[in-house]
Amino acid sequence: MAPPVIALVGKPDCGKTTLLEKLLPELSRRGYRVGTIKHHVHEFAMDIPGKDTWRHKQAGAHTVALSSPTGIGLIKDTDHDLGVDELVARYFGELDLVLTEGYKHTSLPKIEVYRREIHPEPLAGRDDSWIAMVSDTPLGGDLPCFGPDQVEAIVDLLKQRFLAPVKLPMAKAPATITLTVDGNPISLNRFAADLLQRGILGMIASLRGCEDPQTVSISVNNRPDHG
Amino acid sequence: MAPPVIALVGKPDCGKTTLLEKLLPELSRRGYRVGTIKHHVHEFAMDIPGKDTWRHKQAGAHTVALSSPTGIGLIKDTDHDLGVDELVARYFGELDLVLTEGYKHTSLPKIEVYRREIHPEPLAGRDDSWIAMVSDTPLGGDLPCFGPDQVEAIVDLLKQRFLAPVKLPMAKAPATITLTVDGNPISLNRFAADLLQRGILGMIASLRGCEDPQTVSISVNNRPDHG
Repeated sequence: MAPPVIALVGKPDCGKTTLLEKLLPELSRRGYRVGTIKHHVHEFAMDIPGKDTWRHKQAGAHTVALSSPTGIGLIKDTDHDLGVDELVARYFGELDLVLTEGYKHTSLPKIEVYRREIHPEPLAGRDDSWIAMVSDTPLGGDLPCFGPDQVEAIVDLLKQRFLAPVKLPMAKAPATITLTVDGNPISLNRFAADLLQRGILGMIASLRGCEDPQTVSISVNNRPDHG
Repeated sequence: MAPPVIALVGKPDCGKTTLLEKLLPELSRRGYRVGTIKHHVHEFAMDIPGKDTWRHKQAGAHTVALSSPTGIGLIKDTDHDLGVDELVARYFGELDLVLTEGYKHTSLPKIEVYRREIHPEPLAGRDDSWIAMVSDTPLGGDLPCFGPDQVEAIVDLLKQRFLAPVKLPMAKAPATITLTVDGNPISLNRFAADLLQRGILGMIASLRGCEDPQTVSISVNNRPDHG
């Protein structure tokens, strides 16, 4: 199950990053694991010039990873602008919530940050995807409007609308999986077992008759002409 | 099919990164898509202080992505030191080759970089996983030994031993697949059968004992506590 994604939108320099810097600690304090995505239309820089990984990328590596016991960094070429759905599916699957900066031209639920001090008007084109405004001045209209320091109230809204506890059927109890190749049982570590189980359940999920499987058995004969 | 992974090893400051900087352009020139992994035992830094993504991470985001039309950057907390297999399976699947810096205490095929100028001796503990030496001085022994500028010869060796065109067994003949859910056979159209078969064979391909499977059987019990 992909986590909910909320876009923080607003005109340049309105305070999106500053708001994120307040929301993230409050969300962490409440036990949520949160990811962020920043959309960048042009140039791209995310490593420290001169570091080994930076040198690998400069020399033409397609993908560069820096791996440590507590985290990984990854820089990867792509042949297109990955959409939010694709990014979230690939890299954010295990999180509770994703907050983006940018992506205002999508149907993602949006919180607009507005500073009258900087811009005379909020964004044009507000539609049903807006769920709240965060503004340095009270605003009229039907949308909930928060001040830039009302962090707990904003997180309460996110929690109420997007973070209700959701149980995946497969999360109720760990599934068990067995794999046999050419008659030999294959031992699976937890990562491999989880990958295989979720991959298979995911692949069959939209087939008729597979809506809520309890037991699944699959046999593949990879070379029927030799079989 | 996971790409082959070769570790560049050697004592500190022996020139691993410098050799990578020469190998990567030559591999690109020959049309290979190559990734790199740098292993970092201690601290971890891979973003430019002050950038928005850096501010997100500092504020407690678990995963931070910077996405552009030509690439993505990702910084992610992990709860353990991901092994090379796991990193490659997650992030390098589509590449032709992965070169690492570090990971000398693994069974990965290894090229050792040695500079007599800096160290009196190469690494201790050389074993069968060593495939070549790259040295500023000729060395005795049975291993192929290259000078640090013999880039084409080193890439020739990699190509010959690891980059030969590989056909997936599943391409030899169409496989047959059967799927049973809660005891009922599920009918599969050609698309679904192909998706499932390739997905499963792909997921198990890098497991020990699954190198060239003929028959594969998998059972999932999705709710063992109710089963």
